Amino acid sequence: MNTSNLDSTFAALADPTRRAILGRLALGETSVTELAAPFEMSMPAISKHLKVLERAGLIVRGREAQWRPCKLQAGPLQDASVWIDEYRKFWEQSFDRLDDYLKTLQDPTLQAKEKHPEHKRK
Amino acid sequence: MNTSNLDSTFAALADPTRRAILGRLALGETSVTELAAPFEMSMPAISKHLKVLERAGLIVRGREAQWRPCKLQAGPLQDASVWIDEYRKFWEQSFDRLDDYLKTLQDPTLQAKEKHPEHKRK
Repeated sequence: MNTSNLDSTFAALADPTRRAILGRLALGETSVTELAAPFEMSMPAISKHLKVLERAGLIVRGREAQWRPCKLQAGPLQDASVWIDEYRKFWEQSFDRLDDYLKTLQDPTLQAKEKHPEHKRK
Repeated sequence: MNTSNLDSTFAALADPTRRAILGRLALGETSVTELAAPFEMSMPAISKHLKVLERAGLIVRGREAQWRPCKLQAGPLQDASVWIDEYRKFWEQSFDRLDDYLKTLQDPTLQAKEKHPEHKRK
């Protein structure tokens, strides 16, 4: 995995319009005009976002048809997913700890044990 | 999931130094001086990166000890992972297609079938 690719992938994803464009392209390839329609944005502004996505390898523009459809390319997202997944154990650990704590709150027996560890032995 | 949180998470991850800092913190909490050691970078430059990570909620700085240790917080990474995972089927599809193609290349029978679909029926 190339580290400069991760730079451009994460930078491209750091914008809500670009993420929404990828969300639209997940439904199928489409023209720039159609892509731009839901956004209150000028065509040059949309084109700028598309260029960022294209440079990051997250979309490709067709060469054959005159309307040059945009298409999603998920390869860089996979690399980003692999990188983030290295940290999965950290968020899973936090949830385990929260889960244990919530169980303690719901179970009065456990709560008593927490407060008075010797309580049950009497 | 807050969309502006995703903005700051992905923006924070779009830099190799910041990703390396998170990688170091995955090994355990540490001081800023220790964090800075492997990088050929001034202390103010490192501090700037830490501020970006802190604002994105990816690290916390201890308040109790005087050396204010930095600690990883993986919550925002989980949100980023959930977002990216929506696209998993797209990269898995591409691999399935590549896999089918490689199988065709390796198996002469399949190759013949591809070229002459009627070949085997004679």
